[in-house]
Amino acid sequence: MSNALRPLAVAMGDPAGIGPEIVGKAWANRALHTLAPFFAVGDPAAVERVWNGPVARIDSPDEAARAFETALPVLTVACSGDIVPGTPDIEGARCALDSLELATGLARSGAAGGLVTGPVSKAQLYRIGFTHPGQTEFVAERCGIAHANAVMMLAGPTLRVVPVTTHIPLIEVAPSISVGLVLAKARATARGLARNFGIAAPRLAFAGLNPHAGEGGAIGREEIDILIPAIEQLRSEGIDAAGPFAADTMFHARARATYDAAICLYHDQALVPLKTLHFDEGVNLTLGLPIVRTSPDHGTAFGIAGTDQAEPGAMIAAIRMAAQAAEYRAQYDATSA
Amino acid sequence: MSNALRPLAVAMGDPAGIGPEIVGKAWANRALHTLAPFFAVGDPAAVERVWNGPVARIDSPDEAARAFETALPVLTVACSGDIVPGTPDIEGARCALDSLELATGLARSGAAGGLVTGPVSKAQLYRIGFTHPGQTEFVAERCGIAHANAVMMLAGPTLRVVPVTTHIPLIEVAPSISVGLVLAKARATARGLARNFGIAAPRLAFAGLNPHAGEGGAIGREEIDILIPAIEQLRSEGIDAAGPFAADTMFHARARATYDAAICLYHDQALVPLKTLHFDEGVNLTLGLPIVRTSPDHGTAFGIAGTDQAEPGAMIAAIRMAAQAAEYRAQYDATSA
Repeated sequence: MSNALRPLAVAMGDPAGIGPEIVGKAWANRALHTLAPFFAVGDPAAVERVWNGPVARIDSPDEAARAFETALPVLTVACSGDIVPGTPDIEGARCALDSLELATGLARSGAAGGLVTGPVSKAQLYRIGFTHPGQTEFVAERCGIAHANAVMMLAGPTLRVVPVTTHIPLIEVAPSISVGLVLAKARATARGLARNFGIAAPRLAFAGLNPHAGEGGAIGREEIDILIPAIEQLRSEGIDAAGPFAADTMFHARARATYDAAICLYHDQALVPLKTLHFDEGVNLTLGLPIVRTSPDHGTAFGIAGTDQAEPGAMIAAIRMAAQAAEYRAQYDATSA
Repeated sequence: MSNALRPLAVAMGDPAGIGPEIVGKAWANRALHTLAPFFAVGDPAAVERVWNGPVARIDSPDEAARAFETALPVLTVACSGDIVPGTPDIEGARCALDSLELATGLARSGAAGGLVTGPVSKAQLYRIGFTHPGQTEFVAERCGIAHANAVMMLAGPTLRVVPVTTHIPLIEVAPSISVGLVLAKARATARGLARNFGIAAPRLAFAGLNPHAGEGGAIGREEIDILIPAIEQLRSEGIDAAGPFAADTMFHARARATYDAAICLYHDQALVPLKTLHFDEGVNLTLGLPIVRTSPDHGTAFGIAGTDQAEPGAMIAAIRMAAQAAEYRAQYDATSA
């Protein structure tokens, strides 16, 4: 990591979930995983309640790098009310939202080198008037990006996937797919791989929608009517696009070695292989934003909050990936300028 | 394996595909994998053309066990015309179909302990008037079983999956699912696990259809309208049925340890995790038949036929699983009688 990288802002997420614990544990493992400096954004009391390590209250991101050497730096967003691990409430949701707002703003202004978001309770957020489907859409709006242009990528050590559609019923998947949508997601993915991962000529592999990728039209026509035209268009733009492939043949080790990201058409087509292989280390990365944003790909796990059982692996991976993406972006933007 | 087990009949599949080679290689590995005696059904010349091991032409299954010690026993179904590995034709398809017919009949009559089917070319079979969607349906008909009652299970070393629907376009999946269909597949699966795998009280885990298993109806209602009622009905019948679960959380190692088979709703929901984990060793097992029937879960691989590159792992696994299933069935039927 270059010295120029600003510390990352890590929004702690719901204070009653496992977010505070895994942020503390990530700091404790900073040397083992060579983590670049970061600071938490949230209530220091939420961390201290569930984690025994040293906490340093800071007043500005500028203090984070020095404090990081000996303690977890926390930029305070005080929560009202009592925080009880495992028992979410609307005060915790307000605290989580305020932390997200501040951390996003610091990343947007450049005071932080990137944004990592801890797990929140959507159910609690909806109770306080949060109207976005999730944190990704909130962050996109704060960055002035239409959420359709923010692309969700899930990444593990041996697989990156991009779902073209996300949280919609399965029956709506086929009618939701169009050449235009596939092109938009694929172009953003290709650019995102170059910009955030330093892959100069990214290789994209497309999953078919239907069994056996439709068998030449015998089991559905979306491959012929949508995917093949989209792939041909991408190739004409110089993007390395392959497929459509039968989805069940795309995710074993030899197949994964042939591409940098799999473009999948629906949530489970992307998430099933990713989580089958990398359940405890999946990172959610948002492409298409002016800032780096990652998130551990798991929930608040209220059931184990406060019991010292939470595994920090995905949070550590999210912090590492954010720092690496920030580095690659700096190089990419310098080269492209 | 008990001495009572009759040798298995292995239909060689398309003589121009990799079937003959992997059957020969399976025999060569019989000691390493402690394979019970089997015999091939097909043209001995098809094996000899692609494999250098010893072949013993036999006239009846009774000769198989003794011959098996020193050579691959082959019950001859002569192919007309020239067989060119990698170049399928209708003469090869006729040979494959005749082999399948004979091997099925021998299993049905009890002369063979079970049926293993090698890969065929459906395109070539259709040219000679084959009207079944695949070998499974053909075998079911020869056994007098409606093909709707023949259940496809895919099994690997750490995962068994049953797709409730199979080779239909994705858009037809949701309308094709009903409580009745799910119940029929689940009951056949539970009985099949007891009968073919010796699992006295099988644990079934159901995948949801929609992302996050529908999130309580927010992302689709099939979980509420179909899966939950089906699961409750199964439980009332004494079947250990759990779910519906978010599909992406069901297939990592800790989750797989909690069930004996995953009931999935469509082809790729079942086949993606199975082949991601066990691409070279997946076995297709047909439940609900009066005979044991397995098949390696791969195709004819015409592109590498005759080049000594074919991996016999899945064929070996299919032969092993058929022999084990035949053993378990004998025990089950003796106990249940």
